[in-house]
Amino acid sequence: MQFQVSDELIERIEFLIENQKDEELLDLLEEIHHADIAEIITELELEQATYLVKLLDSQKTAEALMELDIGVRERILETLSSKEIAEELEEMDTDDAADIISELSLERQQTVIAEIQDEQHAGDIVELLRYDENSAGGLMAKELVKVNENWSVTGCMTEMRAQAENVTRVHSIYVVDNKDKLKGRLSLKDLLTASSKANISDIYIPTVDYVNVHTEGEEVARVMQKYDLEAIPVVDEMGRLVGRVTIDDIVDFIREEAERDYQMAAGISEGVEADASIWKLTRARLPWLILALFGGFVSVTVLGTFDAAMQEHAALFFFVPLIAAMAGNVGVQSSAIVLQGLANQSLRGSLLQRLIKEVLLSLLNGVVLATLLLVGGILLLGFDFLFGLTIGISLISVIIIASLIGTFVPIILDKFGIDPAMATGPFITTSNDIFGIIIFFSIAKSILEF
Amino acid sequence: MQFQVSDELIERIEFLIENQKDEELLDLLEEIHHADIAEIITELELEQATYLVKLLDSQKTAEALMELDIGVRERILETLSSKEIAEELEEMDTDDAADIISELSLERQQTVIAEIQDEQHAGDIVELLRYDENSAGGLMAKELVKVNENWSVTGCMTEMRAQAENVTRVHSIYVVDNKDKLKGRLSLKDLLTASSKANISDIYIPTVDYVNVHTEGEEVARVMQKYDLEAIPVVDEMGRLVGRVTIDDIVDFIREEAERDYQMAAGISEGVEADASIWKLTRARLPWLILALFGGFVSVTVLGTFDAAMQEHAALFFFVPLIAAMAGNVGVQSSAIVLQGLANQSLRGSLLQRLIKEVLLSLLNGVVLATLLLVGGILLLGFDFLFGLTIGISLISVIIIASLIGTFVPIILDKFGIDPAMATGPFITTSNDIFGIIIFFSIAKSILEF
Repeated sequence: MQFQVSDELIERIEFLIENQKDEELLDLLEEIHHADIAEIITELELEQATYLVKLLDSQKTAEALMELDIGVRERILETLSSKEIAEELEEMDTDDAADIISELSLERQQTVIAEIQDEQHAGDIVELLRYDENSAGGLMAKELVKVNENWSVTGCMTEMRAQAENVTRVHSIYVVDNKDKLKGRLSLKDLLTASSKANISDIYIPTVDYVNVHTEGEEVARVMQKYDLEAIPVVDEMGRLVGRVTIDDIVDFIREEAERDYQMAAGISEGVEADASIWKLTRARLPWLILALFGGFVSVTVLGTFDAAMQEHAALFFFVPLIAAMAGNVGVQSSAIVLQGLANQSLRGSLLQRLIKEVLLSLLNGVVLATLLLVGGILLLGFDFLFGLTIGISLISVIIIASLIGTFVPIILDKFGIDPAMATGPFITTSNDIFGIIIFFSIAKSILEF
Repeated sequence: MQFQVSDELIERIEFLIENQKDEELLDLLEEIHHADIAEIITELELEQATYLVKLLDSQKTAEALMELDIGVRERILETLSSKEIAEELEEMDTDDAADIISELSLERQQTVIAEIQDEQHAGDIVELLRYDENSAGGLMAKELVKVNENWSVTGCMTEMRAQAENVTRVHSIYVVDNKDKLKGRLSLKDLLTASSKANISDIYIPTVDYVNVHTEGEEVARVMQKYDLEAIPVVDEMGRLVGRVTIDDIVDFIREEAERDYQMAAGISEGVEADASIWKLTRARLPWLILALFGGFVSVTVLGTFDAAMQEHAALFFFVPLIAAMAGNVGVQSSAIVLQGLANQSLRGSLLQRLIKEVLLSLLNGVVLATLLLVGGILLLGFDFLFGLTIGISLISVIIIASLIGTFVPIILDKFGIDPAMATGPFITTSNDIFGIIIFFSIAKSILEF
């Protein structure tokens, strides 16, 4: 198919909306996938977008709304009445409906939920709202196909067909007991080939991967990826089957987590898009910049205490940005590798082994870099022996210390249950700048004696 | 199930291997998932791991081999004969087999392929090896279920059952014409409810998303995520159906891409794990550090040209790391936001609009930060008016320039078809350090007149 939302299509739609050609609009949009409808809505002015959302049937718009960026969706939802939003939610799977409701104000949430006609659906949504959005409970949908272990194969087929009506993709049939506790799963093949007199308890597979409602999203993603699962059942504290997480939600989750980690490493403190408002971008960017400013202020003060060196060894001050940059870069490299190791659970071996390895690694890097620097310095800047010694030893020491800070700060934070991703980017570069400068001038002072 | 590979289990397995209790080992491992077998293999010594791989039947080990880290897999494959590797490959899906073969030396590849008994399977693997590993061709598997549009529903059912034997998950049934060109897809429901006399051409759905063998992996992931697909067919240059990409491979791909971007932003130039050897880690880390060193050398030279300021305005030199740090942090923030916008295809509006927005944003950030700095400077360091003015104007200018560099360098690289992720992390911090220092001292020179 390879459909592309073209400028011509957008212009045609704008024209049809302007002239209220509803019939033609419906014809034009009938064959278009809801994800592309979402792209079209994003391109339109708010008023036109709202016109389109109200015109199309709510099954189509419900799915399109889910695909929109949160900012665009917010603006469109504001133009809809609680009843209109409720109609959209009726068409959505419970997990999507809960995600959208959670974006509304608490007051609006209540009026919208009250307008949902399907009591069961409303109850499911309210249940999902209770869970943390990054837990299995927050990621799961209530829609699934389950059968009771005591049913006969014949009864099961009828019941399954009814349940499957509400489920976009069946993936797996789960087996529960009379108390709704998850017992296992059923292969469609076994069901089709089983004698119609058999009971489900005779044919089901008693091993099934599952997660708890409180399992963290990261862990759900890890389990599903490890076992190549396309859906995983979720049980509550009593082992009762309460929902399932499907792979499409996990794909979104993995991407969002990766974006969040990437942004945090870049010193951006809340998920922002390039299209966000200046105000929102400032709020995301300023906190880490203020931290960096304080760090910079500390380095000003530290340098001030070494001003005695200025008379005889002015050149030391020229090397400050070089030393600071090396400390920052080495720290960021080390922290990035450790963070990914923590995320993958691939960090093995004792802390002591890691310490020895990190020292050896940075010693090797440091010696290579110091040699390069000295060759350059002697040829181009005419270093004398003591000055060269100072710069060389400082560079190696700074690299070792910076890589130890980069490695162990995330590990320690993780041990204390703090998100180790905090200790990357601006945090590491700022603290390593300061330590780097202190180490550099301390070594210089003892060698050059000022 | 929530199975965990415990230390006790490992010890038990080690004991059984030492004492060659093959029967007990097979019993113990029979119920364990191949992904967990992979975890066990990783924990064992190489000799024990090889013993296990040779003991277990190749269907189980083939799947476990796929789950191993590349380093562990390499070491195990070295201990196996070409014939033994070929036996493993016979059990794998073509895409996995091709991935593993591509890790071998060219010479070994040939001897292994020659040992594969199933000619068809060998031919499919050889075909897949032709494609770039980051293209749809490199990601796809040959295993799929396809039917000819001219077949009858009855004939189709028999044929489908035979094909489905080789396919782990059917997902979709694709419809092709006599020349193997992709025509559409078939819903299992329509197939089951259709009259047995009907032809496939009467009941198939003629719209189907597909990609070309040369479509980039990033684009395949985007399409599958946008349309919530669990499999997508791949066609060759002539529109013939040649394979399909499944969501589990895309999940791995997305994660690997995210890790690669993250590492690149941290100045690590090839995918390395925390467990890699010191030599490999050095090779990944040293290139960017050498670049940063050269950058540092430039900044030394730049500062040297302003040494006339040292006599009267020594304090300027104390502010160098602060200015450099702010330039680096702002640049990294801007580049991270633009890079994600480029990756999401969510960058909208003209370059001029973006320029104006970026200037306004950094002006706002700059004024806030300069105010904080001045208040601190006046209270703690006793700035005089001209010095304060210098620092304030410099900070604001540096932030504006740094954010413009961070924003537009990736956009320009992208326009020229160069991976914009190159222009982040060390590259941006290093160049912004230098520009920051030049701007700072130029402004200082014109205000303080030295």
